[in-house]
Amino acid sequence: MRTLLIVIASFSLLSPAVAQAPELNLMPVPAKLQRGSGQLAVDQLFTVVVTGGKDDRLNRGISRFLDNLSKQTGMALNQDAADADHATLVIRCKDSGRKVQEPGEDESYALEVTPTRATLTAANPLGVLHGLETFLQLVAPTPVGFAVPAVSIDDRPRFPWRGLLIDSCRHFMPMEVMKRNIDGMAALKLNVLHWHLSDDEGFRVESKQLPRLQELGSQGQYYTQAEIQEFLAYARDRGIRVMPEFEMPGHSRSILVAYPELGSRPGPYPPGRVESDAVALDVTGDKTYKFVDKLIGEMASLFPDAYMHIGGDEVDDKPWNSNPKIQEFIHAHRMKDNRDLQAYFNQRLERIVSRHKKIMVGWDEVLHPDLPKSVVVQSWRGQDSLAAAAKQGYRGLLSNGYYVDLIWPAARHYAVDPMSGAAAALTPEEARRILGGEACMWSEFVNEETIDSRIWPRLSAIAERLWSPQDVSDPMSMYQRMARVSAWLGWRGLTHESNYIPMLRRLAGSDDISALQNLADVVEPTKDYTRTEVWPQGKVKRVPLNRLADAARPESDVARIFSVLVDQYLAGTSQGSAVEAQIRGWLTEWQGNDAHLKPMMERSFLLDEDKPLSEDLSSLSSAGLAAMDAINKKQALPEAWRTEQLAIVDRSMKPRANLLLMVAPPIKKLLEAVPHQ
Amino acid sequence: MRTLLIVIASFSLLSPAVAQAPELNLMPVPAKLQRGSGQLAVDQLFTVVVTGGKDDRLNRGISRFLDNLSKQTGMALNQDAADADHATLVIRCKDSGRKVQEPGEDESYALEVTPTRATLTAANPLGVLHGLETFLQLVAPTPVGFAVPAVSIDDRPRFPWRGLLIDSCRHFMPMEVMKRNIDGMAALKLNVLHWHLSDDEGFRVESKQLPRLQELGSQGQYYTQAEIQEFLAYARDRGIRVMPEFEMPGHSRSILVAYPELGSRPGPYPPGRVESDAVALDVTGDKTYKFVDKLIGEMASLFPDAYMHIGGDEVDDKPWNSNPKIQEFIHAHRMKDNRDLQAYFNQRLERIVSRHKKIMVGWDEVLHPDLPKSVVVQSWRGQDSLAAAAKQGYRGLLSNGYYVDLIWPAARHYAVDPMSGAAAALTPEEARRILGGEACMWSEFVNEETIDSRIWPRLSAIAERLWSPQDVSDPMSMYQRMARVSAWLGWRGLTHESNYIPMLRRLAGSDDISALQNLADVVEPTKDYTRTEVWPQGKVKRVPLNRLADAARPESDVARIFSVLVDQYLAGTSQGSAVEAQIRGWLTEWQGNDAHLKPMMERSFLLDEDKPLSEDLSSLSSAGLAAMDAINKKQALPEAWRTEQLAIVDRSMKPRANLLLMVAPPIKKLLEAVPHQ
Repeated sequence: MRTLLIVIASFSLLSPAVAQAPELNLMPVPAKLQRGSGQLAVDQLFTVVVTGGKDDRLNRGISRFLDNLSKQTGMALNQDAADADHATLVIRCKDSGRKVQEPGEDESYALEVTPTRATLTAANPLGVLHGLETFLQLVAPTPVGFAVPAVSIDDRPRFPWRGLLIDSCRHFMPMEVMKRNIDGMAALKLNVLHWHLSDDEGFRVESKQLPRLQELGSQGQYYTQAEIQEFLAYARDRGIRVMPEFEMPGHSRSILVAYPELGSRPGPYPPGRVESDAVALDVTGDKTYKFVDKLIGEMASLFPDAYMHIGGDEVDDKPWNSNPKIQEFIHAHRMKDNRDLQAYFNQRLERIVSRHKKIMVGWDEVLHPDLPKSVVVQSWRGQDSLAAAAKQGYRGLLSNGYYVDLIWPAARHYAVDPMSGAAAALTPEEARRILGGEACMWSEFVNEETIDSRIWPRLSAIAERLWSPQDVSDPMSMYQRMARVSAWLGWRGLTHESNYIPMLRRLAGSDDISALQNLADVVEPTKDYTRTEVWPQGKVKRVPLNRLADAARPESDVARIFSVLVDQYLAGTSQGSAVEAQIRGWLTEWQGNDAHLKPMMERSFLLDEDKPLSEDLSSLSSAGLAAMDAINKKQALPEAWRTEQLAIVDRSMKPRANLLLMVAPPIKKLLEAVPHQ
Repeated sequence: MRTLLIVIASFSLLSPAVAQAPELNLMPVPAKLQRGSGQLAVDQLFTVVVTGGKDDRLNRGISRFLDNLSKQTGMALNQDAADADHATLVIRCKDSGRKVQEPGEDESYALEVTPTRATLTAANPLGVLHGLETFLQLVAPTPVGFAVPAVSIDDRPRFPWRGLLIDSCRHFMPMEVMKRNIDGMAALKLNVLHWHLSDDEGFRVESKQLPRLQELGSQGQYYTQAEIQEFLAYARDRGIRVMPEFEMPGHSRSILVAYPELGSRPGPYPPGRVESDAVALDVTGDKTYKFVDKLIGEMASLFPDAYMHIGGDEVDDKPWNSNPKIQEFIHAHRMKDNRDLQAYFNQRLERIVSRHKKIMVGWDEVLHPDLPKSVVVQSWRGQDSLAAAAKQGYRGLLSNGYYVDLIWPAARHYAVDPMSGAAAALTPEEARRILGGEACMWSEFVNEETIDSRIWPRLSAIAERLWSPQDVSDPMSMYQRMARVSAWLGWRGLTHESNYIPMLRRLAGSDDISALQNLADVVEPTKDYTRTEVWPQGKVKRVPLNRLADAARPESDVARIFSVLVDQYLAGTSQGSAVEAQIRGWLTEWQGNDAHLKPMMERSFLLDEDKPLSEDLSSLSSAGLAAMDAINKKQALPEAWRTEQLAIVDRSMKPRANLLLMVAPPIKKLLEAVPHQ
């Protein structure tokens, strides 16, 4: 916590102008906003009234809004409806919206706040829900009480499809996790949960038609249909569609564990992840299509959303290549290769999905000229692939660039625009086919304790990209607002901030975690898919996610700010000593940190692998201080010394214990700026 | 967080011996404990087996134990039972215990841990549950993995009745709050929840016989009977009896709101707290006894516990004095006064309670020679009153000294022993009548957000007093173990630590709370019943609990350690500069703190009342530093200056904004130690 506080304090060093006239704390930034003068008081007499028809979803939304306002402010509030003349917030909602929420349904709202009253107008509850979240973000303490600044907002999303994929297969996510993430999504105006429900590692939905799926394919970890129905109502109440995904014909081991006769080779199939044994459905025989029809039929009635995702990605060649009958089938049907076979499967699958009144969605690989134009393509490959699909008449979603499990900084996701690259050159009609995007939270290396910290707060940057005008793109503004949003999400029960200290305490086996936190605050988990499982597995199925790489935040705020300050220092543009003092303060703290941390690391096996990082943090900090002294005095330092320090920098920029020491690159800059002998 | 970390680091300054050979992290301390050599590994292959009969309560307890072990260690564990030869932990449980848990039921257990195996033996599931909590407290990371040290423990409670009263009337406490506090109680081996369910402010249980009670007397905030049944099963599963309390004949406004005809004056009675209008049941007429019989009868079947609390405290004279018919009744029945009338009521009440097969429990005031000896007296007055009751043959419980809403330091509660004072002189037979004690959490000034922080971790000191041998009484050891237990309780979902930062952020309207936390870390809410509601109430029923006095911890660890260090410094016994450096470090930080905090305080109305405290913290810190310089140099400082500083000390020791500046007394000592001119 300590360094985080220093970080935030140092924002004023970075942007004094912003500190003087703070931006409104809104994320995503509204389409249109005009500041008024004065503010509307929000006190315990706050009341809401709805004019127009009654709507249960709307009423529940208002009740949740009042609960959330009460939590944020610590004031008990009256839940009874007021009369229209005296209410603080008047809501005008034209109708109840579609029975099943649809992409493209009107989500716009207008919020008018004057010193005497707020008015929220929307076509349906979706717009009202968005407007209420905007209102909550605006509530802040002022010298005279809680208040909302006078403002006039006219807001609507840029894209109709703003999603998050959660993978409940690799690690099962209890309902509580799913619900709190729905709450977070609603807070950021996202509107689609893409629920990855079947994969090699598990089939996570109760099937009444095909009960072996959960009995044999789930290791006992699945959602009952009753739970799913309750969850779907929960999501709908919050303006969020739920699109299920059932992976075929690859990523289907859990199906084959239950029904081995559908596989491309004879069973049995051992459950769980088996890297060396890629599997696929045998898509040449009728029994597979009978199974698919039964499964899709049942799931189509369980999930009301108009879209159904069938996966379709990463079908390995091996299983089909090694079955002569399948190769014979390809030959007999004049197909070129396995890709043609998958297209054949997708055509038949699409007919099944259509017959059950759903629109089929699949990953990039499903794209094939023989597929009907109704199919929606989700691109993990990028804007060019998306643009190519749009040109062919397919609607598409961008996920490339939005994989939050890659542990990228928020600014990198934020810079990814669905309409950039080849997509920028599309005709207006083609461009409309790009429905939006989806962030993806694959769960190989997250569990219920860590998943929130891998989704939040970075997802808010993607949410803003998909909602706000394209020119809202300043990363500095984004980071400032994201810091506020991150804390604000805590009131919704998300654990991305609250689990940090307990996890560090577990690592330490102690409450005295100051030195450990100093280290944890400047490391980040390795990027992309480079994580290695360094512990022996033996009889153990799951590697525990209880290491520093699991506790560390995906993005080190301290390192990010430190790096900006070093740039200012080296450019000589910073206003005198404040920047230098802040840099030296950190370096001095880190320089002595390893001495404090070492005894703890000796006591806890969980920290053993992190010792080199701690040593290097202290060594590099000494080097950084020496470099600053030399730079200030315009003196050289011995080349041998500099070479030695740069070697430490180099090894710090490579993954160790699945971590990167994020202050190494700015310290490298300091070393390089020392005058040469 | 920052200063807390410094605090804990400074423990090593205080007791280097302890830091070298740490005590086992056990609370309450077991009756008998012997250390062995080596340790038992706790890894992902950890398994449990039960020998002896099957018992559902036991099995659920083991399943929870494995979940908790998994949370603590961050390792997924196998829930399947192992075979007895290979299990890590073997549990031997003789029988299933009583159908309804009773005070005095055998709660003992023996836990034997060797490097190859742990064995837990108990007469029934109660002992097993206690032993499992002991085991969990012993699990810690070591250089080679998680482990439990080899140990032989033979443990049993000193008192059979170890309780916590929770008041669900003044502020309603949702089931979630009740459940997580049951979990905390079980973790500390407490065994009675005394549930305060009716009072002036509300009647909190659904009655099917007398439904107006919840319809009119609860403001819609009550527990349904189904919820209560589920909760009772939850508590029983965790070895905790639930004794309900229904207050009569005073503290009964909520009953009279619903049934005004039972009051000592004609109705109607307005609901809520009305200070100026004390009320009481009219206990002279039969209709009151018919009502009581119906109520007690229904509640006796709902709550299986053998004991029922009828309140009986603080019956105001006014309502009875002002009703001539009641005074006539007193005269006609040759009673001396209202006290005799209450005794008459209690006798009839006791017969009703007995007829419904319950043992009556009441507060001090119920004690009267005419009452049968079966009645249990709960003493809010003290050990002498308790001893007097024991001498007369009544069983008793101590609550005086254990009111956690008085915001005392843990050490003060810890020093209160039920068998001290007049109780120390009781014969063994009389002494056995003292069943134990109960902490009391009255909820006038706590809500669901703050209640955990007013109960935990201080309750663990009381829990130890009631469980451990009388001679376990070193407060320094208690504080060290309590710090560990406090963090450990976070894994059970208690929010006493996790709500601190969010509440400070709310006060600040910002995430940059370092300066605010520096202040919050050294203040405490005012003690005893001195809290004043400084804000105008107007139409508002409830004063919001969102001020610094609500966020501040009941006991400032920083101020406590600071005070010890100042004593060491002044005694000249500290080893050189480490103590002085620590003191100076804090004083220097606080000296500059007001300058950082002031701009934030200007922005948030919630902090306006705290400005003088912040100013005085900085002033006193400057004074303290000057005093130390003078002491070191053996130089005097001007008397006028000292007088001025002592005036600041004096005002800091009086409540402001319902807070006390806890570093004022040690700084006073520094000032007084400066050589006089």
